[in-house]
Amino acid sequence: MTDSQTQGRLVIGTQRYSSWSLRGWLPVKLAGLPVAVEVIPLEGQGQTRALKQLSPNGCVPYLEHNGIQVWDSLSIAEYCAEYAPALWPADRAARAWARSISAEMHSGFRGVRSSFPMNLGRNSRALQTELDAETLKDVARIDRIWTETRTRYGQSGPYLFGADFGVADCMFAPVVYRFLSYAVEGLSDVSRAYMQAVAAHPLMQDWHAAADREPETWQLAFYESIP
Amino acid sequence: MTDSQTQGRLVIGTQRYSSWSLRGWLPVKLAGLPVAVEVIPLEGQGQTRALKQLSPNGCVPYLEHNGIQVWDSLSIAEYCAEYAPALWPADRAARAWARSISAEMHSGFRGVRSSFPMNLGRNSRALQTELDAETLKDVARIDRIWTETRTRYGQSGPYLFGADFGVADCMFAPVVYRFLSYAVEGLSDVSRAYMQAVAAHPLMQDWHAAADREPETWQLAFYESIP
Repeated sequence: MTDSQTQGRLVIGTQRYSSWSLRGWLPVKLAGLPVAVEVIPLEGQGQTRALKQLSPNGCVPYLEHNGIQVWDSLSIAEYCAEYAPALWPADRAARAWARSISAEMHSGFRGVRSSFPMNLGRNSRALQTELDAETLKDVARIDRIWTETRTRYGQSGPYLFGADFGVADCMFAPVVYRFLSYAVEGLSDVSRAYMQAVAAHPLMQDWHAAADREPETWQLAFYESIP
Repeated sequence: MTDSQTQGRLVIGTQRYSSWSLRGWLPVKLAGLPVAVEVIPLEGQGQTRALKQLSPNGCVPYLEHNGIQVWDSLSIAEYCAEYAPALWPADRAARAWARSISAEMHSGFRGVRSSFPMNLGRNSRALQTELDAETLKDVARIDRIWTETRTRYGQSGPYLFGADFGVADCMFAPVVYRFLSYAVEGLSDVSRAYMQAVAAHPLMQDWHAAADREPETWQLAFYESIP
């Protein structure tokens, strides 16, 4: 995929599964960076042999733009926000809050990550095993983040900070897919409405449609065999 | 500790152990934010009962500045960089690289974190158990990050991006202490010189001196019993 109009490439993993790729792809699209998107089928959870030689940290997502190398979803998001400042709230206090919940998502929530691997082929079907304490704590904390942020800062629109779908929404977008796919319960009405708004965003619809078009041979037993 | 000249507070954990607190404290000091520093003795690894009611995510570091709440070390660093832009490199490509290695540190390297808990009371004494594969891989990757970054961007001074001790140095500062404390081997000459420069920085010396003054009753068996 080469195009004389593009200024680089964004390398992502299987769209059905790669939550970190979604977190990098969304800000690139929101900022309108004219890069070619290359999808490398995942072989395991987040890493592929093909990527080990390509990206400095051996992981997706990986962005090359105007000869500049950027890796890790949060770093890609900050890079995109330099071109599209509306990716962060304009108000300093709201921006600090947005960066705090984004960073918290970036380094935490291992319970939710391991219990609910992203799988866009799974349709609102609850996990058949009991949730551990760490996962339940993570779900409660995410519910509180969404509810409190929407209540404090989201009055002007449907997203965390109102009308603009920003970096914080990008960071939580895979969690929205996970909670919907695994029919996670115990969320507030505010959180449920927020999830519907995120899932309905045109870019999320584009991503999901692309995932649905992926060849069946890219599917991995690890993700598909979760009860 | 109250002072009419301060504009808030930075809450950190035991300085002997709290690596994430160091990552938040350094940018606050480098940016010169006039906040009071409050130390809460850790009860476990990174969380304390006292913090659960104080900070939105229940963890240190936690910053309140001019009524604005900021948590998570990377978010605190970005907040400080809004006041002190030199915390990130001025060049866009270097800045993207700095954010990428900072984000990589922020979400990864669990091998190094679990094998070498920060303990400023430990003095250049190698771990008495064999290092697992994940830890060895992490050490090699960190060595490559330091060596490559110093070579590419660090020619004007002793730090990762030259003369200015920036956010990327803050993010790796606890790793420097860990590698020195546990006498980690296999690092390049470039990495070794970098570690010496970081450890010699006046703020690092201040932090270490404060850790040395902490009461012995704050010491925790988990950290002190590592062979």
